[in-house]
Amino acid sequence: MSDAKSNEIGVAVLGLGNVGSQVVRIIEESASDLAARIGAPLKVRGIGVRRVDTDRGVPADLLTDNIEELVSRDDVDIVVEVMGPVEPARKAILAALEQGKSVVTANKALMAVSAGELAAAAESAHVDLYFEAAVAGAIPVIRPLTQSLAGDTVVRVAGIVNGTTNYILSEMDSTGADYASALADAGALGYAEADPTADVEGFDAAAKAAILASIAFHTRVTSDDVYREGMTKVSAADFASARALGCTIKLLAICERITDNEGQERVSARVYPALVPLEHPLASVNGAFNAVVVEAEAAGRLMFYGQGAGGAPTASAVLGDLVMAARNRVQGGRGPRESKYAKLPIAPIGLIPTRYYVNMNVADRPGVLSAVAAEFSKREVSIAEVRQEGMVDEGGQRCGARIVVVTHQATDAALSETVAALADLDVVQDINSVLRLEGTTE
Amino acid sequence: MSDAKSNEIGVAVLGLGNVGSQVVRIIEESASDLAARIGAPLKVRGIGVRRVDTDRGVPADLLTDNIEELVSRDDVDIVVEVMGPVEPARKAILAALEQGKSVVTANKALMAVSAGELAAAAESAHVDLYFEAAVAGAIPVIRPLTQSLAGDTVVRVAGIVNGTTNYILSEMDSTGADYASALADAGALGYAEADPTADVEGFDAAAKAAILASIAFHTRVTSDDVYREGMTKVSAADFASARALGCTIKLLAICERITDNEGQERVSARVYPALVPLEHPLASVNGAFNAVVVEAEAAGRLMFYGQGAGGAPTASAVLGDLVMAARNRVQGGRGPRESKYAKLPIAPIGLIPTRYYVNMNVADRPGVLSAVAAEFSKREVSIAEVRQEGMVDEGGQRCGARIVVVTHQATDAALSETVAALADLDVVQDINSVLRLEGTTE
Repeated sequence: MSDAKSNEIGVAVLGLGNVGSQVVRIIEESASDLAARIGAPLKVRGIGVRRVDTDRGVPADLLTDNIEELVSRDDVDIVVEVMGPVEPARKAILAALEQGKSVVTANKALMAVSAGELAAAAESAHVDLYFEAAVAGAIPVIRPLTQSLAGDTVVRVAGIVNGTTNYILSEMDSTGADYASALADAGALGYAEADPTADVEGFDAAAKAAILASIAFHTRVTSDDVYREGMTKVSAADFASARALGCTIKLLAICERITDNEGQERVSARVYPALVPLEHPLASVNGAFNAVVVEAEAAGRLMFYGQGAGGAPTASAVLGDLVMAARNRVQGGRGPRESKYAKLPIAPIGLIPTRYYVNMNVADRPGVLSAVAAEFSKREVSIAEVRQEGMVDEGGQRCGARIVVVTHQATDAALSETVAALADLDVVQDINSVLRLEGTTE
Repeated sequence: MSDAKSNEIGVAVLGLGNVGSQVVRIIEESASDLAARIGAPLKVRGIGVRRVDTDRGVPADLLTDNIEELVSRDDVDIVVEVMGPVEPARKAILAALEQGKSVVTANKALMAVSAGELAAAAESAHVDLYFEAAVAGAIPVIRPLTQSLAGDTVVRVAGIVNGTTNYILSEMDSTGADYASALADAGALGYAEADPTADVEGFDAAAKAAILASIAFHTRVTSDDVYREGMTKVSAADFASARALGCTIKLLAICERITDNEGQERVSARVYPALVPLEHPLASVNGAFNAVVVEAEAAGRLMFYGQGAGGAPTASAVLGDLVMAARNRVQGGRGPRESKYAKLPIAPIGLIPTRYYVNMNVADRPGVLSAVAAEFSKREVSIAEVRQEGMVDEGGQRCGARIVVVTHQATDAALSETVAALADLDVVQDINSVLRLEGTTE
């Protein structure tokens, strides 16, 4: 018995929400398979929760609210952190690493701000720090980027990495609903939280963009480095215009390697809603699904698709990391270390070559289009497509016109200056919306 | 200088075709990046080729036709085998492993027959044996299956893993061409070899199915265990019928875990052309692209998409493995070992639940459909859809009828018995084609 026990890999699970309870269930139900794959049985030593007094569907003696004590136990080899948010997770993980435990975390907010500190602690202690579940749930993206593409040069990563906003935008696209009612639907179905700010304002996607950019470009990128716009202003009218242009609208996380005017290579990481041509592989990723497109010099374009959230899918990613960390314990090795040698500077948004879609109300008189077009040409922004249509008031009288402009590629700085100048024109009544167009390079 | 050299990771590359020359190029061009990622520089010690007398675009002193000597050199740490086919690659890889070199191979034919022998040799020598490039070129599938999904239970893997046949089938679908002219086009564009047998008869896909089934189900599966049908008999008429049924036709590699009538879990691995509903994610994978759909209990459905062949994409996968093997050398660890504990028996094709599409010419008289339907119902095969149309001869006279039947799910044995019985019916003139329907379970 004591022999069997000494062979066990002790696991502490921090958090018993959707993901944590699935992790505990799978460790239990797949025990013999996992033991065969690892070479030793996994044993949950304890589960850290905020309150131990509720019935949580697990043996009560496993529950503890003393996380510091739990991660310090001698019989804990690996700590699985699935509680979020940044604190107290950060402190618990640091304590675990410093005491020689390997750590598996699904905490994107934490990894997007503290990856450097945590990786250094893992390095000092010669243990593993895995975080596949922090980006795109069950979809393997961290491991493909850090390992499968370790010999290639990644040029670009573009993904739909937030299921809540993708559900809302898919609804708006397919039903013509406006943002508020699509959000309400998402909430009713459990796809949106009571306070959806982290999702709809792009904070969640920005954390994931920071993690993806860090590993894709071997450079430290944190949440603060990510340019971010939320998707709450996307309107039903934008979807109608997008459709007329052969596009849909998606909230994208984009990580790109660009070369600035001085020849300096830089990393751009950004999150915003953008028009995407219907023929682009990301355009058909609907509902709560996630997908990540990776472009690398030798591999070309790869796409990874699947469920980006939810208890069981996220637990699948956590369990994969847990089995690998446990195997390394048994075999006496480690997974790949952090690779941040490239240290590329961050590119400010103004430098980024992009395309704009501008939707504005204008006075309905001759010369307006010419005045509008002049503002683009003054800044050397080339127009790809213009659509102009008359507007009628409630009485059926013409009361103005709407112009939609889609540009060719220019720097974001030139484009945003153009929009500011348009807003100052007398003939422009309202700038209804400004969105970028991604997935083309013309 | 000698210090620098002792730090180098020595690489022998076997083969200098499309893939090998890209591997050598990338090692050269990305030298400083690769060194930073590995923690030591890679150095190509020699390149094994069949003939050294031709100008190959690499320093002549690297070339050797003595592969045995090359893999045995003391200054070679890792052997990259990209020469194919089974021999002499097998012998060279075994020699390398036995001498403590790690091995990276893109050789699917070899891995599909000799994985057990090679893995045992790697295990004895405590070295790595990586083969990401053997399946689906640049697309990471081996690593996601063996690592990311190590804690999950894979239920099914279905993929388009042969670019040549997918190009041909995509052409037939989009242009209405017949097999012979689509094959000729593929040959002219370099997508098909002079002897396309390995591709069009499904041998290449079967080798990949064996590898995928082995790792997905922790069970040894070899090429001989894979049920295989080629796609040379798929006709333009089949595509027309498929389209009428809302489907296209793809050559699929399918690996599945099934439970037989006695409750025994078994592994099925099979390759054949099949109807796929247009809304299935594999239906829109066109041209020379590959995609693999993985279904796992916790993760749900994942899809991996990209370029499945070609020099640079395959080299990307090889380089990823090479960097990981080199890192393990530097850090003093190993990647995950083979996991074949499950030892599930192979399911014969007759046991497999599937759906059939049967296209036949029949006599144009009353009672024929009833006679045809009776053969299905006798074997408890339920019909999902029937289409019957009259046929006219050159003079415009009716000369018979064509019946297309699509069944619900039944065992392959029951379905193939039904087809045999139909062929014996007097009223059935010809069985034009029999294809399976995948991607639905009704």
